[in-house]
Amino acid sequence: MQNLLDEAIRYALPYVLEGKPASYIPELGKVDPKQLGVAIVSMEGNHWGSGACNSNFTMQSISKVAALMLAVMDRGEQYVFSKVGMEPTGDPFNSIIKLETMKTAKPLNPMINAGAIAVDSLILGEHVEEKLNRLIGFVRRLCHNEKIWFNQEVYQSENATGYRNRALANFMKDAAIIEGEVEAVLELYFKQCSIELNAMDIAMMGAVLAGDGTSPITGEVIIPKSIARLVKTFMVTCGMYDASGEFAVRVGLPAKSGVGGGILATVPGKMGIGVFGPALDSKGNSAGGIKVLEYISRKLDLSIF
Amino acid sequence: MQNLLDEAIRYALPYVLEGKPASYIPELGKVDPKQLGVAIVSMEGNHWGSGACNSNFTMQSISKVAALMLAVMDRGEQYVFSKVGMEPTGDPFNSIIKLETMKTAKPLNPMINAGAIAVDSLILGEHVEEKLNRLIGFVRRLCHNEKIWFNQEVYQSENATGYRNRALANFMKDAAIIEGEVEAVLELYFKQCSIELNAMDIAMMGAVLAGDGTSPITGEVIIPKSIARLVKTFMVTCGMYDASGEFAVRVGLPAKSGVGGGILATVPGKMGIGVFGPALDSKGNSAGGIKVLEYISRKLDLSIF
Amino acid sequence: MQNLLDEAIRYALPYVLEGKPASYIPELGKVDPKQLGVAIVSMEGNHWGSGACNSNFTMQSISKVAALMLAVMDRGEQYVFSKVGMEPTGDPFNSIIKLETMKTAKPLNPMINAGAIAVDSLILGEHVEEKLNRLIGFVRRLCHNEKIWFNQEVYQSENATGYRNRALANFMKDAAIIEGEVEAVLELYFKQCSIELNAMDIAMMGAVLAGDGTSPITGEVIIPKSIARLVKTFMVTCGMYDASGEFAVRVGLPAKSGVGGGILATVPGKMGIGVFGPALDSKGNSAGGIKVLEYISRKLDLSIF
Amino acid sequence: MQNLLDEAIRYALPYVLEGKPASYIPELGKVDPKQLGVAIVSMEGNHWGSGACNSNFTMQSISKVAALMLAVMDRGEQYVFSKVGMEPTGDPFNSIIKLETMKTAKPLNPMINAGAIAVDSLILGEHVEEKLNRLIGFVRRLCHNEKIWFNQEVYQSENATGYRNRALANFMKDAAIIEGEVEAVLELYFKQCSIELNAMDIAMMGAVLAGDGTSPITGEVIIPKSIARLVKTFMVTCGMYDASGEFAVRVGLPAKSGVGGGILATVPGKMGIGVFGPALDSKGNSAGGIKVLEYISRKLDLSIF
Repeated sequence: MQNLLDEAIRYALPYVLEGKPASYIPELGKVDPKQLGVAIVSMEGNHWGSGACNSNFTMQSISKVAALMLAVMDRGEQYVFSKVGMEPTGDPFNSIIKLETMKTAKPLNPMINAGAIAVDSLILGEHVEEKLNRLIGFVRRLCHNEKIWFNQEVYQSENATGYRNRALANFMKDAAIIEGEVEAVLELYFKQCSIELNAMDIAMMGAVLAGDGTSPITGEVIIPKSIARLVKTFMVTCGMYDASGEFAVRVGLPAKSGVGGGILATVPGKMGIGVFGPALDSKGNSAGGIKVLEYISRKLDLSIF
Repeated sequence: MQNLLDEAIRYALPYVLEGKPASYIPELGKVDPKQLGVAIVSMEGNHWGSGACNSNFTMQSISKVAALMLAVMDRGEQYVFSKVGMEPTGDPFNSIIKLETMKTAKPLNPMINAGAIAVDSLILGEHVEEKLNRLIGFVRRLCHNEKIWFNQEVYQSENATGYRNRALANFMKDAAIIEGEVEAVLELYFKQCSIELNAMDIAMMGAVLAGDGTSPITGEVIIPKSIARLVKTFMVTCGMYDASGEFAVRVGLPAKSGVGGGILATVPGKMGIGVFGPALDSKGNSAGGIKVLEYISRKLDLSIF
Repeated sequence: MQNLLDEAIRYALPYVLEGKPASYIPELGKVDPKQLGVAIVSMEGNHWGSGACNSNFTMQSISKVAALMLAVMDRGEQYVFSKVGMEPTGDPFNSIIKLETMKTAKPLNPMINAGAIAVDSLILGEHVEEKLNRLIGFVRRLCHNEKIWFNQEVYQSENATGYRNRALANFMKDAAIIEGEVEAVLELYFKQCSIELNAMDIAMMGAVLAGDGTSPITGEVIIPKSIARLVKTFMVTCGMYDASGEFAVRVGLPAKSGVGGGILATVPGKMGIGVFGPALDSKGNSAGGIKVLEYISRKLDLSIF
Repeated sequence: MQNLLDEAIRYALPYVLEGKPASYIPELGKVDPKQLGVAIVSMEGNHWGSGACNSNFTMQSISKVAALMLAVMDRGEQYVFSKVGMEPTGDPFNSIIKLETMKTAKPLNPMINAGAIAVDSLILGEHVEEKLNRLIGFVRRLCHNEKIWFNQEVYQSENATGYRNRALANFMKDAAIIEGEVEAVLELYFKQCSIELNAMDIAMMGAVLAGDGTSPITGEVIIPKSIARLVKTFMVTCGMYDASGEFAVRVGLPAKSGVGGGILATVPGKMGIGVFGPALDSKGNSAGGIKVLEYISRKLDLSIF
């Protein structure tokens, strides 16, 4: 397995040059774009890593997976999906059109920004701090890492430039999709996107999903099986922005990417995979990271289809 | 003329029952919906009124006409129209779709909300207060009424519920269409919408436009002729929300309505007409007010076409 | 007046180089793009011409004005506008989006392709030939020219490549907006677009509209006044494709352009103007023709606003 | 297994009353809406059936799966996906909007009507008849049934009322997405939709897909493994119209429905499932058929996620 990971990094490294770091969040643009790393945690609790697998990055959209699971545990599947849909969309992640053209302003799914913001408004807690603490606590349990926290500089950068997300949130508030104060929901959303961890943490999170919610280390049930399956489904149909369809064809695994350069992937019943490569392609996915996953999936014949 | 106005009110009054006051700004919903008034100021400076022609109401979208003229005087036609387009649109006044589907997020014209907010960001002034004072001063000159001010309750109501306008403004800020702080521009926009006056004031403003910018009372040139013509053009092509086309067919006059129930109309070379009737039709135009204008235009054969 | 027209052509000629003939209808691409001509017919029946004012070209979208008048005379305003709307649109002339996003597939106005095709389906006649003969007969009366006929080569070229118009027509047939056979309506539409005439013919047609439907030569009432006004309104709000707003600001006259290079303009109570210049700008309007009209409107202060 | 199928039919039968047969193709509206049947073919070649598993119905959109496989075998994956995308969409199956708003008119995926028509234009053959014979021959091999043919009445009904599909095809022809004659492609598409078979045939087709392209009966490789996986991916992300996301959550199997009432489902490595129930829900999927699949998937724990 260690050899495979080393090969995957070697194979994928040239593709890093075709991408570039996210520029619309200034703080993200400061990262070294040539990094590439991968980590795997198996169902037996073994782990391997190669390349920049211990470098920190911010979760960005990968946090949507955790937030969705917490919201469904907090409020129930039925209530959550009365506020957000289940359907994939060919529109970009930050599109606002469908909110206006659909009969209701209900966002199409919880993996696009609009949907994730709506989901955040459902997480229980008296105030932003409590909600955030609950969410970070949940991410720590998923990653088996009590040191995880959010990056203050990235948060401030997101908050200062997050006009498009403010537009989405205000549009949904107008349509009564969002509960509570718009700015409070956005604070939670921007802080959650700024949660910092590494590829090994992500691989552990993927292993928990691979085990239908049960920790491969402690045997603890962290998430109910039905919710673990639910999020894996969304990861397949809309986890890779508007390249989800092509990724499903080429790789065939439930995965969620973030513009911080991370990708969370999970092989049901087998393993979790975490990837980090901050150079992004035109769809916002890690350019090298996708190639790492293509290589591993092909070599180990991991496609679920 | 007095008889004609009385007849017009009598003719139009039943249509008031088909409309209802704007509900999305709570403060506007408190008004008596059965009011209907009209006023005319001729090029010779004569004036007539009938019905609720002295009742106060807030300008709402009628203020877009004044703001556009001031912005063009402040920054020049070329600069203003690098930020906002000149084309009518079949979309509702608060639509956000075109901002995303057009090649740039430039709003289509200065009479829809997005365009008016963009125009507001161009008005000169150190801070919101100065911009607002300049704009109110300009409205006072247009109306020949030094007592005009904005309604604090309506402003607060608009500010508290203006999520859709916040969505539009943040979307445009993201696309670099809006200059300065989003919240500062919105404060100016909400306060300008809350400027309070009556149908007689509006008729005077219409008379200034009828005279291509020159006061029929003092002979003062308040606006350059080219700018007066410019706004009259926008009033024809997009002054009555997405009922502008039908209004042009039925009435044939440059006009601008507001959800406060007012309509500003102007008959080039002849007169200004102000109407007030807070019961709105489904497009957001004064239900009775449109009928008043239809009656007067037909009787006096005023269509410019 | 003759001097003015000569000057207008001299002023506008350089702008011809910025445009190019319509390429999507192959036959139209064969024309000499450097031609530019203008003609005027006054309310007294006098006429002047300059440049290529006797060159033949096909009406293309200018024919929509004639077809609309005939359909309204045939079926009544109320019925026609139950099938097509009255509102301008910021979308391109061949856009299909609004047909799907609006509550009904009713096209927004009779000047876009979808609306014009819907209008054509309303013209009376047993079969295509009779409808076409009635329409050409009507155009002959408007132009006072009994020799007008359609160009067979252009018709065949339009028919062979008119996939977008076929898409619009079939979409509307599906939504029950179009009456009768799709291909029959399209045959009428393509033949009507291919009606051939010159700038002097167009100027005469404009003069009839300027006189609210009465011939300046014979005094005959060719169209009822209400219908003449109706089409002039549409010419202002949506006669110049998605540059109608800017044209209203710069020229201020009811006008309708066609991709054959013609522009029909009318000055209410004063004159008709016909322009021909086949080099088109990016919106599909005659590049030189618009400049000719700008020059004449400014010099004679003709804006209706 | 036989008991399970009988139970599934009993469980799902009441839901039949919530749906109704497709009405926009008149011929389809004549079917008895209370029918419901299911069939399973295992990897060992065993088969079971319950309810109306031998009733004939037309494939409709299920044929898109076969046509896609044939086109990819004929022209290669790379060429096919230069004409059609790989991304799911939240729009209805017959939507035309995306063709205009995307940078190219390339349809988003091969499972929506626009994409399927584009795919049909790629199938090899001198003329429609040869293409159709090749496609029906391929369906016969997939279903192991040499008697399969298309239903002439349904074909004529589709052809006579297929205005929306004509709109899609002409729009794509205009954008050079479709090769060859529009009407020829539509003839192939309408005839392919009218291919008639039963739930047992469909189950056999699903078993071939479950075996990655190899017949569970003869061991013959009917489709290359890579292409079998490719279509299973599309069946997950966009096989159930704009309810694909919810179906993935509730059932978790690659599936493709048709408005004839059929659903093709496949359990990778395990079995093929064919369902027939002509009463459709609001999204166009078999109302009872979805419930049958929900029941079986839950009882046998078949979700791939």
